[in-house]
Amino acid sequence: MNMITNHLPTAELQKLDAAHHFHPFTDKAGLAAKGARVILRGEGVWLTDSEGHRIIDGMAGLWCVNIGYGRKELAQVAARQMDELPYYNTFFQTTHVPAIALAAKIAELAPGDLNHVFFASSGSEANDTNIRLVRRYWDVKGMPWRKTIIARWNGYHGSTMGGGSLGGMKPIHAHGGKIDGIEHIDQPYWWAEGGDMSEDEFGLARARQLEEKILQVGPDNVAAFIGEPVQGAGGVIIPPRTYWPEIQRICQKYGILLIADEVITGFGRTGQWFGSQTFGIKPHIMTIAKGLSSGYQPIGGSIVCDEVAEVVGGAGEFFHGYTYSGHPVAAAVALENLRIMQDEKVVEHVRDVAHPYLKERWDALAEHPLVGEAKLVGLMGSIALTPDKAKRAKFAGEEGTVGYRCRERCFANDLIMRAVGDRMIIAPPLVITPSEIDILVDRAKKSLDECYAGLKKDGLLVAREG
Amino acid sequence: MNMITNHLPTAELQKLDAAHHFHPFTDKAGLAAKGARVILRGEGVWLTDSEGHRIIDGMAGLWCVNIGYGRKELAQVAARQMDELPYYNTFFQTTHVPAIALAAKIAELAPGDLNHVFFASSGSEANDTNIRLVRRYWDVKGMPWRKTIIARWNGYHGSTMGGGSLGGMKPIHAHGGKIDGIEHIDQPYWWAEGGDMSEDEFGLARARQLEEKILQVGPDNVAAFIGEPVQGAGGVIIPPRTYWPEIQRICQKYGILLIADEVITGFGRTGQWFGSQTFGIKPHIMTIAKGLSSGYQPIGGSIVCDEVAEVVGGAGEFFHGYTYSGHPVAAAVALENLRIMQDEKVVEHVRDVAHPYLKERWDALAEHPLVGEAKLVGLMGSIALTPDKAKRAKFAGEEGTVGYRCRERCFANDLIMRAVGDRMIIAPPLVITPSEIDILVDRAKKSLDECYAGLKKDGLLVAREG
Repeated sequence: MNMITNHLPTAELQKLDAAHHFHPFTDKAGLAAKGARVILRGEGVWLTDSEGHRIIDGMAGLWCVNIGYGRKELAQVAARQMDELPYYNTFFQTTHVPAIALAAKIAELAPGDLNHVFFASSGSEANDTNIRLVRRYWDVKGMPWRKTIIARWNGYHGSTMGGGSLGGMKPIHAHGGKIDGIEHIDQPYWWAEGGDMSEDEFGLARARQLEEKILQVGPDNVAAFIGEPVQGAGGVIIPPRTYWPEIQRICQKYGILLIADEVITGFGRTGQWFGSQTFGIKPHIMTIAKGLSSGYQPIGGSIVCDEVAEVVGGAGEFFHGYTYSGHPVAAAVALENLRIMQDEKVVEHVRDVAHPYLKERWDALAEHPLVGEAKLVGLMGSIALTPDKAKRAKFAGEEGTVGYRCRERCFANDLIMRAVGDRMIIAPPLVITPSEIDILVDRAKKSLDECYAGLKKDGLLVAREG
Repeated sequence: MNMITNHLPTAELQKLDAAHHFHPFTDKAGLAAKGARVILRGEGVWLTDSEGHRIIDGMAGLWCVNIGYGRKELAQVAARQMDELPYYNTFFQTTHVPAIALAAKIAELAPGDLNHVFFASSGSEANDTNIRLVRRYWDVKGMPWRKTIIARWNGYHGSTMGGGSLGGMKPIHAHGGKIDGIEHIDQPYWWAEGGDMSEDEFGLARARQLEEKILQVGPDNVAAFIGEPVQGAGGVIIPPRTYWPEIQRICQKYGILLIADEVITGFGRTGQWFGSQTFGIKPHIMTIAKGLSSGYQPIGGSIVCDEVAEVVGGAGEFFHGYTYSGHPVAAAVALENLRIMQDEKVVEHVRDVAHPYLKERWDALAEHPLVGEAKLVGLMGSIALTPDKAKRAKFAGEEGTVGYRCRERCFANDLIMRAVGDRMIIAPPLVITPSEIDILVDRAKKSLDECYAGLKKDGLLVAREG
């Protein structure tokens, strides 16, 4: 058996990494010059790196390790399933028990008539499935002209050609292109873009851009709207409470399909099983991944309502799918993850213990001189950094410079907190305890203090003009 | 711990499967009416279903289980890695040992200066990476107009919006669309399309379509050509020996990047580590998946040459990647799979033992009255079914009807052999022994005999007009 445990010094590992590992979303040459941080082990909410640092993971890996690191039951299930049936396809009129059991469990957990699961290995793949699925749906319904999908600027739906195009991140579009038939409307980000409006007014105004866009594209040409209940990679943008009911109303009015991208918000992150439940959304399709397996295995999928499944599934072969759709090991591990979440009442822990406790401490960060707003839903939170709270001002200079400085302070303080532009965001494992929340927030506060002092010293507490 | 092992009767499993599991590439309602076959266990080249049938797997799952089912070392490595670090991201200047070790091992195995690995969870995702990568490459080189990628009709490159568009399968394009900037040329399928030309002439003629297409699109607009060394899902189309050298020459002449999709042909399938070595191709990028982990884990990626890695990696952040890029458990399992392949000399087994033995028996199938050609490279083989050998004729009636009938006979004889239209194809685990090859070919022969008798009885041995 190959020994994966590291026996090389950090510098050797960094050298090998720079020579052969092309990292995602990375400046390759820049990272090679600096050397990557090597993560060795995880336990609960804690990571250990190759230099022996013990780091609290405020991002749950990448919004995914919901039940925390090091749960031995999942390793046992993986090994057992790998012994029994490490792989089989589900293409040619065959199936296997893990895919069946997981599909049935997901259907049981999902609200309404979201009863059918089309498996993928990631949220990206699942969103590409959704593009094919909704367009096929309208084809079969005799309306092949309904092809356009409306999404939001600064939304994130993955990095495939389809997923990256649904997303509203211009740098992703710039690196490889954006596919046809995707339109974007503005995001419901009140703090930065709300101007003089109240949050409620702004939520309605931004939702009504959907109607304007539908009328502009032509109601007969629109297949679907897609959105994350809470934008994650965009900076944990929690929409005003008026936003989603209005989106829902407009989708119904024009009879277009509603896709909720629950890759981040699904499986307990917002204090309910799905973000759609927290925000009162009734989607026709949900995109899932990440929390489904707590990231222990690459697995994602689309949960599809009866109507869409019956229309597409009743019209002969649907020419789409992935070799690893419903991979038996990934499915078995995901099923065990959901078993643990149910048996240990992890969602209830978020709702009744972790969220209320973190909320009190997180809200208090709004008092910090560098913080413009501090928001939290369930266990996903954000703080906006600003040189001028009253004006909700941005910093002069390049967007993200201050966020990057703050993130470097967090790194130095053994806290993983992510920067999105000049917003700092967290999404810790859902099993985090109150005492661990104290450590997380104390380190965040210390990092903010140090960042603030550094900005002051460097004369960078300056607001952007205009 | 959740018990994944089945305790339900087949009919109950089929009912649950029909109710909640939306299968890939499947007629959902049709399968629900019939009931899926439930695969329970695998061992070596053998599968067991829920009715106790012992099936020989002539397709290695789906071209992937190269080292066979049930290798306990992989289960042990998976469990060990899951205990230690079940997930961590490689986005934010962090890395981990399994991704480093696997990237270094792949770079060691890959020919030439293919030294850099960008990880994904599937071949589909990796091909979407390739689209973004080659377009970004030309952007950085100051030629942003070089966007078009040329591929082949009846090629297969996955099922995402990008991968499905590179592929030349019209039904996939029909279900959800084909993205812009992809052009297709004809495939090098001599038996069906070669007419009066010799194989060598035909290979050159089909390769020269690339030059015609480049001139038509404009040489300055072409970013890359992509092809599978041997088309897999298209029906194991082994190109004439003249084909790839001419493709290579044309790519060099116009300075366009060459992508070899090695998802099926990689990791020993053709009797060398990569199909590119078997066919003398020198690609700038290779797409990999499947055999990389023997299908035990969902993992894929792009192996990138120095030039492309230095250009894209030296120009700041590349805005692309996947949450599960380099997933530590998937990477650790893939590494152990490659360790086994090296230590047990699996590629040498294909080249020196299994291929020569199967070749003799496979070639003999060409004598069967239903078989127009029987071809084999390494351990991927195809036979063309025909009502008239001399004329290389297709069957009257809908394409694929005879293939489907033949596949049903294989199922009944406990052999997994796949039908692509009216071609039957195999790609068994690479560890298959001569005595297992005998069983496989005996069952194939019996299925062909039964299929032939059935067609005769039903009066279907009729050639298509014209």
